[in-house]
Amino acid sequence: MASGNEEKIESGFNDVPETKPKKDWILLSLRVVAFLAAVSATLVMSLNKQTKTFVVATIGSTPITVPLTAKFQHTPAFVYFVVPNGIVSLHNLVMIAMYILGPKFHNKGLQLALIAVFDTMALALASSGDGAATAMSELGRNGNSHAKWNKICDKFESYCNRGGGSLIASFIGLILLLIITVMSINKLLKLNRN
Amino acid sequence: MASGNEEKIESGFNDVPETKPKKDWILLSLRVVAFLAAVSATLVMSLNKQTKTFVVATIGSTPITVPLTAKFQHTPAFVYFVVPNGIVSLHNLVMIAMYILGPKFHNKGLQLALIAVFDTMALALASSGDGAATAMSELGRNGNSHAKWNKICDKFESYCNRGGGSLIASFIGLILLLIITVMSINKLLKLNRN
Repeated sequence: MASGNEEKIESGFNDVPETKPKKDWILLSLRVVAFLAAVSATLVMSLNKQTKTFVVATIGSTPITVPLTAKFQHTPAFVYFVVPNGIVSLHNLVMIAMYILGPKFHNKGLQLALIAVFDTMALALASSGDGAATAMSELGRNGNSHAKWNKICDKFESYCNRGGGSLIASFIGLILLLIITVMSINKLLKLNRN
Repeated sequence: MASGNEEKIESGFNDVPETKPKKDWILLSLRVVAFLAAVSATLVMSLNKQTKTFVVATIGSTPITVPLTAKFQHTPAFVYFVVPNGIVSLHNLVMIAMYILGPKFHNKGLQLALIAVFDTMALALASSGDGAATAMSELGRNGNSHAKWNKICDKFESYCNRGGGSLIASFIGLILLLIITVMSINKLLKLNRN
């Protein structure tokens, strides 16, 4: 292979002012925010639980109350939501560690391509989790009269609000991950042009 | 820039047997199957409708029947599902047209990067649609006793089966799109190495 010749040609660009470290800082900041968003989403959803006491009957003037609990574990879509967000948190953490411990990795072709591929997979995973959880949240908030599914958010308001907060955090993480993925692909393109 | 020198070095590889056209055929085939899968998912879901007559009461010996219809429009998640799958169909169609009409585009850096970026976006979009529709299908099939949401697939069996078929088609399209995206990123990496 002519890699020896190519290296010689590339070494001629060494005097060009380097702009890469600046860009790495932007990427690193985006990663950190994306990581925090995914971790928040995971934690808020996985701790989401509300117990409320409902009056189910009245005997004479004595109300019969029953405590009812809404948990994220009751909805398979919310359980699934926690998994991709947990994986995305871990993925972002590993990437942040790689930035800090081995910044040289991030300017090589194969590593950049692998990062882009892993980012893409994490993005697809997080996106499916967000889709599933959003669909169930919408149902909880509005119900579905055709299927005779009543809304539950009028009864478990803080449960629904925490779930919504978790979703918003996850969507922020998702959008940042999309931007990061596009930047990863762009880095691979720029490496190509140098 | 030293592009002139690089071209001279690259021209030394012209006698190496070209493997690119073969790879393009694999990619093109994958695109065609992904397109067909996405189109099937879109059409099957958007035409999904079942009307069934139910006995709601009996006066004397005369049963009172009411026709009930299950439509995909009744579930916002299914309506949303149609949008990403339609967009992915269109995206794959445009990519197939580009392969056939302008194959040279596919070996240039910027075009490869743009294709990878659009593939990634299509993937994220389709993934969210699949997540949402899967969550609602699971609910339709199993119900949710905690929220007192009854399953409806015991009543509208062929509606549910068609919905499930549409989901499977969409998942096939999604997995193919993931493979295509990874191949697009790999192409960008290979361009980099030559």
